[in-house]
Amino acid sequence: MNAATKPSRLRDTHVTLSHGGGGRAMRDLIEEVFTDVFRPEGDEDQARLTDAALATPGARLAFTTDSFVVTPLEFPGGDIGKLAVCGTVNDLAVGGARPLWLSAAFIIEEGTEIALLRRIVASMVREAEAAGVRIVTGDTKVVGRGSGDGVFITTSGVGVIPAGRDLGAAQIRDGDVALVNGVLGDHGATILAARGDLALSTPLESDCQSLTHLMEAVLAAAPGTHAARDATRGGLASTLNEMAEAAGVTVELDEAALPLRTEVKGLCEILGLDPLYLANEGTLVLFVPEAEAEAALAAMRATPAGRDATIVGRAGPRGSVPVTMRTAFGGQRIVDMLVGEQLPRIC
Amino acid sequence: MNAATKPSRLRDTHVTLSHGGGGRAMRDLIEEVFTDVFRPEGDEDQARLTDAALATPGARLAFTTDSFVVTPLEFPGGDIGKLAVCGTVNDLAVGGARPLWLSAAFIIEEGTEIALLRRIVASMVREAEAAGVRIVTGDTKVVGRGSGDGVFITTSGVGVIPAGRDLGAAQIRDGDVALVNGVLGDHGATILAARGDLALSTPLESDCQSLTHLMEAVLAAAPGTHAARDATRGGLASTLNEMAEAAGVTVELDEAALPLRTEVKGLCEILGLDPLYLANEGTLVLFVPEAEAEAALAAMRATPAGRDATIVGRAGPRGSVPVTMRTAFGGQRIVDMLVGEQLPRIC
Repeated sequence: MNAATKPSRLRDTHVTLSHGGGGRAMRDLIEEVFTDVFRPEGDEDQARLTDAALATPGARLAFTTDSFVVTPLEFPGGDIGKLAVCGTVNDLAVGGARPLWLSAAFIIEEGTEIALLRRIVASMVREAEAAGVRIVTGDTKVVGRGSGDGVFITTSGVGVIPAGRDLGAAQIRDGDVALVNGVLGDHGATILAARGDLALSTPLESDCQSLTHLMEAVLAAAPGTHAARDATRGGLASTLNEMAEAAGVTVELDEAALPLRTEVKGLCEILGLDPLYLANEGTLVLFVPEAEAEAALAAMRATPAGRDATIVGRAGPRGSVPVTMRTAFGGQRIVDMLVGEQLPRIC
Repeated sequence: MNAATKPSRLRDTHVTLSHGGGGRAMRDLIEEVFTDVFRPEGDEDQARLTDAALATPGARLAFTTDSFVVTPLEFPGGDIGKLAVCGTVNDLAVGGARPLWLSAAFIIEEGTEIALLRRIVASMVREAEAAGVRIVTGDTKVVGRGSGDGVFITTSGVGVIPAGRDLGAAQIRDGDVALVNGVLGDHGATILAARGDLALSTPLESDCQSLTHLMEAVLAAAPGTHAARDATRGGLASTLNEMAEAAGVTVELDEAALPLRTEVKGLCEILGLDPLYLANEGTLVLFVPEAEAEAALAAMRATPAGRDATIVGRAGPRGSVPVTMRTAFGGQRIVDMLVGEQLPRIC
């Protein structure tokens, strides 16, 4: 039956424990709020999928998962649903995979507004369409008041890595150029400002966006690309430390080249934070052989997600300090991994 | 470096917010508690997988997800980790898929004991080995005290459905025989008894177990099997209602044939519950053409998970009441879907 013409059986405005109990109330919630919108195929508790790319000789399946616990659930530039789609799509894309299918599992706190759930689900469908993936299976659980916090979403993603592609931090070589596709720290700064206890008003928006199309454009223009990572929790600094250690190289950043909004710099100065550690949700760092750096840069700039793409540094030979930064004053400082936490529940 | 010889950097006994922050503390927790035990391949945030079965003509990929929020986290016969592996493996197996790979995403409340996490992870690895699957990718998030409840785990699973297999509730036909592999309600009754507020002491254990090997044995012996479902939340009654409605058939259960432990019956009588609605975590219901019913029964009984297998009912023609039960006194009663909740956070 068509979702638009089906009479609603869901009379409640807020989620109760009975919506998680396995009976009629749960079925009504799942049908009206989730499956009528996601429209998975079939009635079984598993998606059954075929794609010619999977059967291509040399192709590999890529599989990833992330839980999202961001607070607040809705923020300028996105919400937990958009984040849950983009985050998992991006984990697939930066590994060179074409994302195909997502699962979505919801842990919902008793008392959550059903209208909020509907907005989150609509946002997920919009973002999945933009990224070219389908949400094909899911689950809902309900926990009592005070045992959760609104909504947590776990998405898992399956994609296909075409034969011959092998991106990974271990491939980075001395001399590689490091590029980012956009400004740094917008997501972290936006979430920070959106938290009620700070009550800061800024024009900032999260950079939350899927990077599928950008990655495909880069890999077409610069097929020798060695590695890509989305610089999420821990920010660019932590991501680069992980990559440099995995590759056995050093990375030197150029402070003057780092793309930062005035508002992010300002917020960081007020709060004593370093934008290099702020989370991003649509910003990646690429390592490309020097010969292909300009091609990668041009390809990124030609996509909506890469308009502010720029070269930010370079890989060097193995050394005792994985990541350093040439400062605007000509000095050099260590860029360590984040120690402890800068901001909990950022994604 | 070998996990056994690596010096521990994880000094804490309990999880703090810094273990979720994206920095060094998070990396130490993830490495020592999770990846040193799960041993995924590669350094990237995605698993890269190949399996000949995926490329076989006509094969389909099966993909499913479930969040687990059971309380208490450890209970007689299992824990949330074992449950998270079995639950997702079983969702794949009952659809006729051979489970191959799992992801595991953890949402951990600040203050959770790290020793508890280690026990849960060890239990997941043991159960994955028993079920013949690998945990290949994962995630951890930390939420503040009171924003979660110990540990929530979301597992997703990928498997392969061989060419020609098409199990599903819609395939059930008038005349099919309904079988279960074991006693009903052990999981629900065990969790209920294990909750501190009841303080009941029983010899019960959860039936939590993976059904991969049992399903393969059934499908080899009774290749005409129409459908299988694990009777989890909502119990056998809700599962049969969903299946009967999807198939457009009725199902009549035989009360005298239902396999129930004396302890489960007793607990249900004391608490005014119906064991048909109690959750199971290693019990499935099969619909098989009459000609193959004995073969399916014998195949189940030859596996450890099917020793108590029995025929419990039969599918009939479409009718106004999807599921009924012939009672021990010769009457007939309606077996409705669970309305509301019998027990929250059962899985």
